[in-house]
Amino acid sequence: MENLADVSYVLNTFFALFAMVLIIFMVPGFAMLEAGLVRSKNVTAVLTVNTMIYAVASLAFLLVGYSLAFGSWENDSMSKWAAFLFQMAFVGKVINIMSGGVSERIRVLPLALFGLIMSAFIYPMVVNVSWGADFLAGTFLDLEMYDLAGSTVIHSTGGWALLAAILIMGARRGKYTKDGRIRAIPASNIPLVTLGAFLLWIGWFGFNGGSVGSIASKESADAVALTIMNTNTAGLAGALSAALIMYIQYKKFDITMILNGALGGLVAITAGPNLYDIYTPLLIGAIGATLVVFAVPFFDRLRIDDPVGALSVHLVNGIWGTIAVGIFSDKSLLLQLKGIIVVALFAFVASYVVLYVINKLIPLRVSQEDEYDGLDLAECGMESYPEFVKS
Amino acid sequence: MENLADVSYVLNTFFALFAMVLIIFMVPGFAMLEAGLVRSKNVTAVLTVNTMIYAVASLAFLLVGYSLAFGSWENDSMSKWAAFLFQMAFVGKVINIMSGGVSERIRVLPLALFGLIMSAFIYPMVVNVSWGADFLAGTFLDLEMYDLAGSTVIHSTGGWALLAAILIMGARRGKYTKDGRIRAIPASNIPLVTLGAFLLWIGWFGFNGGSVGSIASKESADAVALTIMNTNTAGLAGALSAALIMYIQYKKFDITMILNGALGGLVAITAGPNLYDIYTPLLIGAIGATLVVFAVPFFDRLRIDDPVGALSVHLVNGIWGTIAVGIFSDKSLLLQLKGIIVVALFAFVASYVVLYVINKLIPLRVSQEDEYDGLDLAECGMESYPEFVKS
Amino acid sequence: MENLADVSYVLNTFFALFAMVLIIFMVPGFAMLEAGLVRSKNVTAVLTVNTMIYAVASLAFLLVGYSLAFGSWENDSMSKWAAFLFQMAFVGKVINIMSGGVSERIRVLPLALFGLIMSAFIYPMVVNVSWGADFLAGTFLDLEMYDLAGSTVIHSTGGWALLAAILIMGARRGKYTKDGRIRAIPASNIPLVTLGAFLLWIGWFGFNGGSVGSIASKESADAVALTIMNTNTAGLAGALSAALIMYIQYKKFDITMILNGALGGLVAITAGPNLYDIYTPLLIGAIGATLVVFAVPFFDRLRIDDPVGALSVHLVNGIWGTIAVGIFSDKSLLLQLKGIIVVALFAFVASYVVLYVINKLIPLRVSQEDEYDGLDLAECGMESYPEFVKS
Repeated sequence: MENLADVSYVLNTFFALFAMVLIIFMVPGFAMLEAGLVRSKNVTAVLTVNTMIYAVASLAFLLVGYSLAFGSWENDSMSKWAAFLFQMAFVGKVINIMSGGVSERIRVLPLALFGLIMSAFIYPMVVNVSWGADFLAGTFLDLEMYDLAGSTVIHSTGGWALLAAILIMGARRGKYTKDGRIRAIPASNIPLVTLGAFLLWIGWFGFNGGSVGSIASKESADAVALTIMNTNTAGLAGALSAALIMYIQYKKFDITMILNGALGGLVAITAGPNLYDIYTPLLIGAIGATLVVFAVPFFDRLRIDDPVGALSVHLVNGIWGTIAVGIFSDKSLLLQLKGIIVVALFAFVASYVVLYVINKLIPLRVSQEDEYDGLDLAECGMESYPEFVKS
Repeated sequence: MENLADVSYVLNTFFALFAMVLIIFMVPGFAMLEAGLVRSKNVTAVLTVNTMIYAVASLAFLLVGYSLAFGSWENDSMSKWAAFLFQMAFVGKVINIMSGGVSERIRVLPLALFGLIMSAFIYPMVVNVSWGADFLAGTFLDLEMYDLAGSTVIHSTGGWALLAAILIMGARRGKYTKDGRIRAIPASNIPLVTLGAFLLWIGWFGFNGGSVGSIASKESADAVALTIMNTNTAGLAGALSAALIMYIQYKKFDITMILNGALGGLVAITAGPNLYDIYTPLLIGAIGATLVVFAVPFFDRLRIDDPVGALSVHLVNGIWGTIAVGIFSDKSLLLQLKGIIVVALFAFVASYVVLYVINKLIPLRVSQEDEYDGLDLAECGMESYPEFVKS
Repeated sequence: MENLADVSYVLNTFFALFAMVLIIFMVPGFAMLEAGLVRSKNVTAVLTVNTMIYAVASLAFLLVGYSLAFGSWENDSMSKWAAFLFQMAFVGKVINIMSGGVSERIRVLPLALFGLIMSAFIYPMVVNVSWGADFLAGTFLDLEMYDLAGSTVIHSTGGWALLAAILIMGARRGKYTKDGRIRAIPASNIPLVTLGAFLLWIGWFGFNGGSVGSIASKESADAVALTIMNTNTAGLAGALSAALIMYIQYKKFDITMILNGALGGLVAITAGPNLYDIYTPLLIGAIGATLVVFAVPFFDRLRIDDPVGALSVHLVNGIWGTIAVGIFSDKSLLLQLKGIIVVALFAFVASYVVLYVINKLIPLRVSQEDEYDGLDLAECGMESYPEFVKS
């Protein structure tokens, strides 16, 4: 190295690669979480969907999406390949959020096709106006929302796509009975759920920490460390708040709700983890988890069937986290709300239209018989646990 | 960056964050290890306990413990938030060590309460006199023990708390029969045990490597790399020694003992991985694993029921590792012994008193019926593998 | 730090440790992948084998292999301990490749013994002439092949050892029936297969990225980032190509083939991830996956029984990746072919001889009865899932 500018370039590149690797742990993270939450007859399909999403989304972003979002590959502060990799690591997450909530009924092929279009066009357009080239700059639609790592850009976008998909596809058969009851469908493998949730938690350090964009000064290093600290604190607060509410209500420590509470807190902090003092994330995370705990039965009452609670975790808290920036920092709440609404309209409508068209060409939903027997054999030709006798 | 001091600050911050992330992998690490070692009727409870511990312990350390341990949050060599995060990552481990050994009978709520007090007060006091503000400095109790990453401070402290808990709570029902026999209770999921052990192993690189405290000079970088190398070597030697002893005794490669042997070696090296040449860890790890292999049946003969072997791995090797520093380096063995004894007395007595009081308020132990049926439904309202028929 | 040279030393050390940690994730990665692919009666044995391999291989490399490969431990560009650790992380992988393909029939003890000899002598000799001291320099056997991270040095070497082992040991009983049919033996745990594959994928970033050897300049940082990017792209292309071929052939998304396709792409890119533009890896990975999809039934027709597809993934693509360097970069295809052939001859013959001799002393294969009952009880005295009723 010849000077301190080179050192900065190397450090920022290295740090972006480190952050990217952490985010990639979210690929098995989502896969394990969702594989644990669904019934064993649908586990292979869920794993296949998660694998296909990573492949399709990253490829589409490489070939089309990244240029669409940022206009140019050039970068002065770090290797342009590292900058790409960091952004690429995000893309699949948007579809993961969506795919989890339509588990146990969606087919692999149309989902992969939707993932392709989402990653090549819909998500890059959201990034374009939020973090990227900003083709709306100067227009009245110009998004001036603050969203460091994507409470809205990632989590709400995925959540709106999920809502569109659920509205088109409907609930799992048998989830809501004709006499108005809601059937509880237990998770099949709690260790996988826990493993997945913690891989996501760890990935979040890269997600949010890396979004600071630089580590190569004392101020940047402080910002990165504060961001990771606040991210973690919101997760803790979420886990504990969910545990408390469930214990008060039912005298049980409901681990899936505790973990979803943690994830809700993590989503909520994502818009501004660098903006708060070290105690505010406790409040943001606690509110986030409370929202999850009450949103899960709320969506069920609306007969919006989301087997993994993705709407409650990602959509509700994506919105809450973006609002929180307007409340707990000096950013304009109005601009935050504007951002939430513009992204909501675009992401929901675009996803709805694309899913609607796909559904006409290749039905999103498996046949009634395949849904009853499980998607694993129909979609993948392979059971997840073929040797274990099932009750 | 303006000068080389800034570069050091950034590098130390980045490295502390890297080490912290590795340690956080120990959260799913302990969770998977313990979930695999217990019977399937208690797996959800074990996972819940591990999740609650991380949340409660980190929160208590944020709000109270860290200030108590170190007196001040200020730090010149790296971001103070990174310094906190690195230390915070340690805390839950102390309780994890304790919780594993009282698996299959302890309730979540009193354990979480104990975790709170341990992380807010007991453990911070141990850190205070070992690595922190040192309120005993100048008194005859002043700890001058060398314990780089916590063979005593972390592992023995957790081990003494566990011993206190076992003495108060007793063994699992049916473990020791009235006619004096010891019932073998097999682990329910060996892949999870293996996954957990390797996540712990990897976390140890952060634990010990990060404890060097700086990477920002050639000497520091060498010390970090040597520390990680010696840590790994002790683990290898532990695994192989346990394998050899078990094979000679039983002609079987007992994977749970091999992994516990590796963990024993890792605990033993933790006090001084930076002090030895590259061959000494082979001896320290081999002795550590031998201690594990013989301590496990020894505790059983004393009817001290520890389902995961935590006393053998963490307490016995915490002591052995701290002694090893006095034998294989130029540190005073006498001061090492003094440190072991002072921490032992404080950690055991404080844990015993706190657990005793909690037990009077909220019984630590589940009811006989819940223990028989498994803790999962009683404590968490959820089975771990509801679809798999159990024998 | 006193100057920029110190900064380089620290950065290279830190980066090598980061890369090493990623590679160590491949230990649980291979363990989970293989544990998921075999039948549940052989899972504990597979996990034990993987654990023993890491311990034995690393130890042998520490005591003998590293010096044999590189001649000297000295290193100017980073801590010599970090340089060792990075190389050490590779070693076990060679044996993992081999052990996976003889799963469900090989005994732990002779395999550990072979691992010892492989890691102390055979593999270090391959490294010596490829990346190390090069005792053949100046002779007509001098290897001038380009193989950045070991398509040939790691993957083909392991593959040739596997081929030798399969030729000596034969197929699993019942795999090929007397009337010429091939029995499909389903994987027992698809979530573990998926988790393992993604841990390997993540480990590959360290494997290939770290093999660039330095990150401490703008050019090096760019090379590292491009290497990781191209590695990932080849994996994506592999996954998608395998998915496509399987879907066209069978109308099913075969997740084990999709993951093996990804791994095949990752093996193929390993020889030259730093040499290509960002689109070439799409082609290299796609061809790699195609080779996997057709090699798996091809080996079966030859009655070469490889339960995890290791020959197709590692040997076939190790060769393909090394050839690809000669096609898609300016390196000489002739020298690439010479390298492939020399390593093939040496690795195959040396492995064959060593395995043949071991087999005479300690039979490689379990008894017919133990194979029928499963290796877990016979070799390890422990079932993997003792509570789950098996069909």
